[in-house]
Amino acid sequence: MDSINTLGKNARRAETVLSGASAEAKNAALTALAKALCEKSDFILSENAVDIENGRRAGLSESLLDRLALNPERINGIAQGVRELADAPDPIGRISEGSVRPNGLKISKITVPLGVIAVIYEARPNVTADAASLCLKAGSAAILRGGKEAINSNRAIADVMREAIAAAGLPADCIQLVEDTSRESATALMRLNEYIDLLIPRGGAGLIRSVVENSTVPVIETGVGNCHIYVDASADLDMAADIIFNAKTSRPSVCNACEKVLLHRDIAPAAFEKIKARLDEKNVKILGDEAICAMSADVSPASQEDWEREFLDYIIAIKVVNDIDAAIAHIGEYGTKHSEAIITSDYDSSEKFLARVDAAAVYVNASTRFTDGGEFGYGAEIGISTQKLHARGPLGLSQLTSFKYIIRGNGQIR
Amino acid sequence: MDSINTLGKNARRAETVLSGASAEAKNAALTALAKALCEKSDFILSENAVDIENGRRAGLSESLLDRLALNPERINGIAQGVRELADAPDPIGRISEGSVRPNGLKISKITVPLGVIAVIYEARPNVTADAASLCLKAGSAAILRGGKEAINSNRAIADVMREAIAAAGLPADCIQLVEDTSRESATALMRLNEYIDLLIPRGGAGLIRSVVENSTVPVIETGVGNCHIYVDASADLDMAADIIFNAKTSRPSVCNACEKVLLHRDIAPAAFEKIKARLDEKNVKILGDEAICAMSADVSPASQEDWEREFLDYIIAIKVVNDIDAAIAHIGEYGTKHSEAIITSDYDSSEKFLARVDAAAVYVNASTRFTDGGEFGYGAEIGISTQKLHARGPLGLSQLTSFKYIIRGNGQIR
Repeated sequence: MDSINTLGKNARRAETVLSGASAEAKNAALTALAKALCEKSDFILSENAVDIENGRRAGLSESLLDRLALNPERINGIAQGVRELADAPDPIGRISEGSVRPNGLKISKITVPLGVIAVIYEARPNVTADAASLCLKAGSAAILRGGKEAINSNRAIADVMREAIAAAGLPADCIQLVEDTSRESATALMRLNEYIDLLIPRGGAGLIRSVVENSTVPVIETGVGNCHIYVDASADLDMAADIIFNAKTSRPSVCNACEKVLLHRDIAPAAFEKIKARLDEKNVKILGDEAICAMSADVSPASQEDWEREFLDYIIAIKVVNDIDAAIAHIGEYGTKHSEAIITSDYDSSEKFLARVDAAAVYVNASTRFTDGGEFGYGAEIGISTQKLHARGPLGLSQLTSFKYIIRGNGQIR
Repeated sequence: MDSINTLGKNARRAETVLSGASAEAKNAALTALAKALCEKSDFILSENAVDIENGRRAGLSESLLDRLALNPERINGIAQGVRELADAPDPIGRISEGSVRPNGLKISKITVPLGVIAVIYEARPNVTADAASLCLKAGSAAILRGGKEAINSNRAIADVMREAIAAAGLPADCIQLVEDTSRESATALMRLNEYIDLLIPRGGAGLIRSVVENSTVPVIETGVGNCHIYVDASADLDMAADIIFNAKTSRPSVCNACEKVLLHRDIAPAAFEKIKARLDEKNVKILGDEAICAMSADVSPASQEDWEREFLDYIIAIKVVNDIDAAIAHIGEYGTKHSEAIITSDYDSSEKFLARVDAAAVYVNASTRFTDGGEFGYGAEIGISTQKLHARGPLGLSQLTSFKYIIRGNGQIR
């Protein structure tokens, strides 16, 4: 597609300028961008109203409309996030290793921008500003392709941001929006190896699968979290119930929410009673294996597919396991390598779980909801990586960089 | 393909054992493996003789036959490399970051194995042992698919290694060879996302392009090096000639060899004379742009394709540029992000080149031939990454790992 190719070329050209920009210049652009988002919020809100109106007419669900909707507080929140980024330490030019080799060569390993980062996401206009400003701070040009339902909002936000950073002296093309929201434009992005260094899909399992299947550009998978909490035989059952209640109900639509609970058979009935009492407070629908179904008439049987999927809703599935090994094996089979937790008071169980569960974040006696850039102390993030290459867990500023070796010599030959 | 799927399943099963193995257990297996390669060298050499005989009959070039050939010294060299690996520090379980969050959560970032690593390579049987032992030390199971010309050698080496590590108490399936060397088996490997965490193509540009085009498994590209040396106006021309001679002729077939020289116009005739005098010692064929062709009747015109390709031979292309910016722009257009060098005595030129050239390794006044795990002090490597994600430059032990966050709490909720 010509238009996508042009975006790629523009991004590459902008990136060569941006990668040489000082931290001061980038921070000034971010500050200007935050200011512009607030000053032009009426324009952004009026464009957003068009998307909301179209969405209502198209029959979008209330929860989708809620994600799509902007208001003055949300815009202020976005701008505040951008201002915090401006204040954050610059991730570029850090020397992470260095040595003088026996032959006198001085080698430094130094962080550099990735170059051009493309983000494909769904109908959440806040991502347009969040992703663009993170990429800018990380010294990379951003190509953004949001969902078609948010196109008017995204175009407005992108225009405001482009104008602001151009006025601040950086190329407007550091931020570009793909206005063509067809499937073809997404596919073209996925094959644009010449101009894109990293593609991040941010959204549901279907989007991510499609990107992994079709992309020749390097991808970081994000966001699918079929997270488990295993309650060990030795667990403090009140703590278990509190953590499961928090991990399921504090924000059910996010990827670090708990979707599955595994109960050691020795404490299963007592644990189930306490957990169910808490979950009932929020009318969480409980699915279960045979043993759990036998404990309460309120429980429906979980299907094979239920064990595999994210509910992202007030639904949870609970299963009884024979021991910690069975719990670890179940997580190995159904987990998505996002966040997994054990509730235990036994030292050996805690160490075994931490060592043997393969996920970005493995917890003892804490809620899976902490897998988050802010909670880890890394600041803003563009998503949670569930793959093992390059970045795992919160994809913050320092994960959005690459590095190079610079080597100073005085005539060395080999 | 069923057979490839089975290999994947076996590798995953072996990896779950290997990832829990102690450094001691891995090192004992490596030591046993090295010993077995030496003790069974007669068997390996007799199988290698079959490949050589088949290769001669198929009309392989002498340089390909040389890469394919093993002899007792080469086998000893391979075994010595494996023993050094056994002595190297273990890359797994290192805590690279850690903090206590304000809420008391203790977060550690710890290195873990990648899982299953597949390597697709050409007819070099030494890679079979080198790659398998690096993966083993890094705690990952290896699936190896070498070129069909080396199949008998590879099968012999793999059998010897599998038997040795099984006797040492690790699963034989930590090392598996794809015996089917059809194009279909390579394609099946590239789509085996369920069982393969990382695919490394090691070989020529054609192989790497095919893997990048077709793989849905995460890939690290290696080994294409269209490396440039730019001779600045202020360069010490004798140093330039020595470095270019070394970088071109010390081993022309490798990816860190110099393929292109760019001369600042102010010193072009004097520099060319000195450089040509050195290159003539080894009868290096010189291609040039118009300006260089005008300097000597020995120079043939370089085509557009010549500027783009790796010669991997006693051939070099030389071009005159107006200034350092033109040199950097040429490298940006034709370079493969491997290794690039400037020869200069000017401080500003050195800093500009280091900052603006985007490559794994950027040199001032040294040969590009130093881009190598051993030369960087990282030990053995599986190749040189030319991509910006995960690992850049020498792909040694510590680049063949992932990490996870382990979080210890005492009931924290969010």
